[in-house]
Amino acid sequence: MKRSAFQTRVSTFREKLVDAPPDAAWIIQPENRRYLSGFKAEDAQLNESSGSLLINHKANFLITDSRYETEARKEAPDFEVTLVNKGLVEGLPGLIEPLGAKKLGFEEDHLTWGLHRHLNKKLRKLVSPVRLSPLNGLVEDMREVKDKEEIKAMAASAKLMSEVLGKVIEKLTPDLAEKAIASQIEGLAREGGAEDLAFPSIVASGPNGALPHAVPTKRKLGVGKPIVLDVGLKLDGYCCDMTRTIFLGKPEPRFRKIYKVVRQAQLAALKEIRPGVESTHPDSIARDIIKDAGFGDYFGHSLGHGVGLATHERPRLSPQGPVLLKEGMVVTVEPGIYIPGKGGVRLEEMVVITKNGARILTKDSHFYDF
Amino acid sequence: MKRSAFQTRVSTFREKLVDAPPDAAWIIQPENRRYLSGFKAEDAQLNESSGSLLINHKANFLITDSRYETEARKEAPDFEVTLVNKGLVEGLPGLIEPLGAKKLGFEEDHLTWGLHRHLNKKLRKLVSPVRLSPLNGLVEDMREVKDKEEIKAMAASAKLMSEVLGKVIEKLTPDLAEKAIASQIEGLAREGGAEDLAFPSIVASGPNGALPHAVPTKRKLGVGKPIVLDVGLKLDGYCCDMTRTIFLGKPEPRFRKIYKVVRQAQLAALKEIRPGVESTHPDSIARDIIKDAGFGDYFGHSLGHGVGLATHERPRLSPQGPVLLKEGMVVTVEPGIYIPGKGGVRLEEMVVITKNGARILTKDSHFYDF
Repeated sequence: MKRSAFQTRVSTFREKLVDAPPDAAWIIQPENRRYLSGFKAEDAQLNESSGSLLINHKANFLITDSRYETEARKEAPDFEVTLVNKGLVEGLPGLIEPLGAKKLGFEEDHLTWGLHRHLNKKLRKLVSPVRLSPLNGLVEDMREVKDKEEIKAMAASAKLMSEVLGKVIEKLTPDLAEKAIASQIEGLAREGGAEDLAFPSIVASGPNGALPHAVPTKRKLGVGKPIVLDVGLKLDGYCCDMTRTIFLGKPEPRFRKIYKVVRQAQLAALKEIRPGVESTHPDSIARDIIKDAGFGDYFGHSLGHGVGLATHERPRLSPQGPVLLKEGMVVTVEPGIYIPGKGGVRLEEMVVITKNGARILTKDSHFYDF
Repeated sequence: MKRSAFQTRVSTFREKLVDAPPDAAWIIQPENRRYLSGFKAEDAQLNESSGSLLINHKANFLITDSRYETEARKEAPDFEVTLVNKGLVEGLPGLIEPLGAKKLGFEEDHLTWGLHRHLNKKLRKLVSPVRLSPLNGLVEDMREVKDKEEIKAMAASAKLMSEVLGKVIEKLTPDLAEKAIASQIEGLAREGGAEDLAFPSIVASGPNGALPHAVPTKRKLGVGKPIVLDVGLKLDGYCCDMTRTIFLGKPEPRFRKIYKVVRQAQLAALKEIRPGVESTHPDSIARDIIKDAGFGDYFGHSLGHGVGLATHERPRLSPQGPVLLKEGMVVTVEPGIYIPGKGGVRLEEMVVITKNGARILTKDSHFYDF
């Protein structure tokens, strides 16, 4: 990713800070940290941070420890790398004091109550005490609309995932177990350069397909019933998320019908996605088609969600909480119908919203034209 | 794992609640949740909980949503499964009110500041307002000492990991790339029944071995320089963590020397581990040996850490924060010497503390007798 992308993001973030109350911001959420700095490290556990950013109108610090020094300097050259070897909070007060900040913005959806209390005590004791103030999702807001570099990265992630899934689908046979397919997917994704899966692959055949979050089992795929493959990987930090539903042998008539309805709902929703539309609208288009076909009770989740550095991020395409869709947002469109004990069908595309509507990034043609 | 283990844990937890101020507890931390209930689901993201427990002196609720209903009922039969479909916090006040609790204990090292604020507002508005009160690591305290069922599970996890690592070591050749070995390890672990790795495998050859948290690269192993393999997997929820350092070809004399010192430090520390000893003591035994050999500046991390449902948990074996070691604790013993730009040696065993001292769980004999 070009350095200029990170520089632009930090400038934008600074402008937002000027409008908002805090005069410095402390960034600990791993995706936000990567988004602003380029620093790639992840946190092994919630209580094991690999670093944080401290940003005000003129300074950029990346505070980390000796384990990450080499990577930090290489990945975040616009940041002044500062080593602290006693945990997330210990070195912070000493760095904030010279900045002359009165209010320090923090990520209220990531900082734990316990660490907040601990840090707050330390900041209050400074000669010029500093107050903690929630950033109210400032970076998450920025991440909602992807810049050019991000769209390129997401297209690459989607391309790799589509190729991997396409290859796997071509070789499906009824006697393969769900688990074996999940490990094929992971192997091919890593061979293709993915640093990780975006989430554990779902390979759900027959009745397992009725569980939207099924874990792959030893069950063999069999024939006639739908097989749901919901997969994602991370490439250069960016996630992809896509689903295909496949039949081996002759599809059972009931699921042929269901597939047709889900695909119809998906295509109709895709057509309605463009800048300026409310996020609840594509959901209701898809939901109405499924309802009208008599399956209203069997589509229990939202139509889609934003994707980026995280698999699930803003905006949501759901019946609740309308926001206006914008150019540059990347979302999934994934209606499904699930018949308990029998099986399910879900079809998911990941798209970027352009002036001209939804551009599909998950280019794979394994759809049925029932 | 036997149901009775979970029942005992909940009883113990209840007794601890009686002594402590809160009269009900809300458990959201995934490992704590699994420890008390058996519910296996993980959280995909910090803001995507798969469920929480609500426990008071007589009631056990597992609050989850429809996606996890089947698993919840199966995995946590001692809990009353309650479905709530609007997020972690929404259904909670309605469940707490009938319990008549005045103070609700929460996990201050997991609950975010933002969610705490949100929940607090809701609880204050109840007809009988409920106050939130930190649990101060009550469940983490319990998890420090493993029960019989857990020790069995950890022994099984260590056995599988040792077998996998042993197989991989036997087949190392100088032209293999670090990355390829990491994926062998993952493949064999999963074939052996592991649900996941405990952490990304470290396969670090030559200069990469000097980075304690090296990420596997395309570098080929080569000869003469040490190759650090630090690996772990999760079996039935329980983590294993172990490290071997291997030479291909003739070991360079410098690293032969270093290896000898590290191994000596490890064996000496292992001897000092027994109930009643301070957690800082084995660290200082190992550290002194390394210092006396002239490598004091090259051992930058702690001697070890607790392992269990999490890879890193209490107690720490470090120079700071002494606690008394107890029977049933499971810890790693992993001294290392790292020469920047050249290479490193780390040797790690995972042991359970018994009346008679440290019993090694990571049974693999790939050590050199230099």
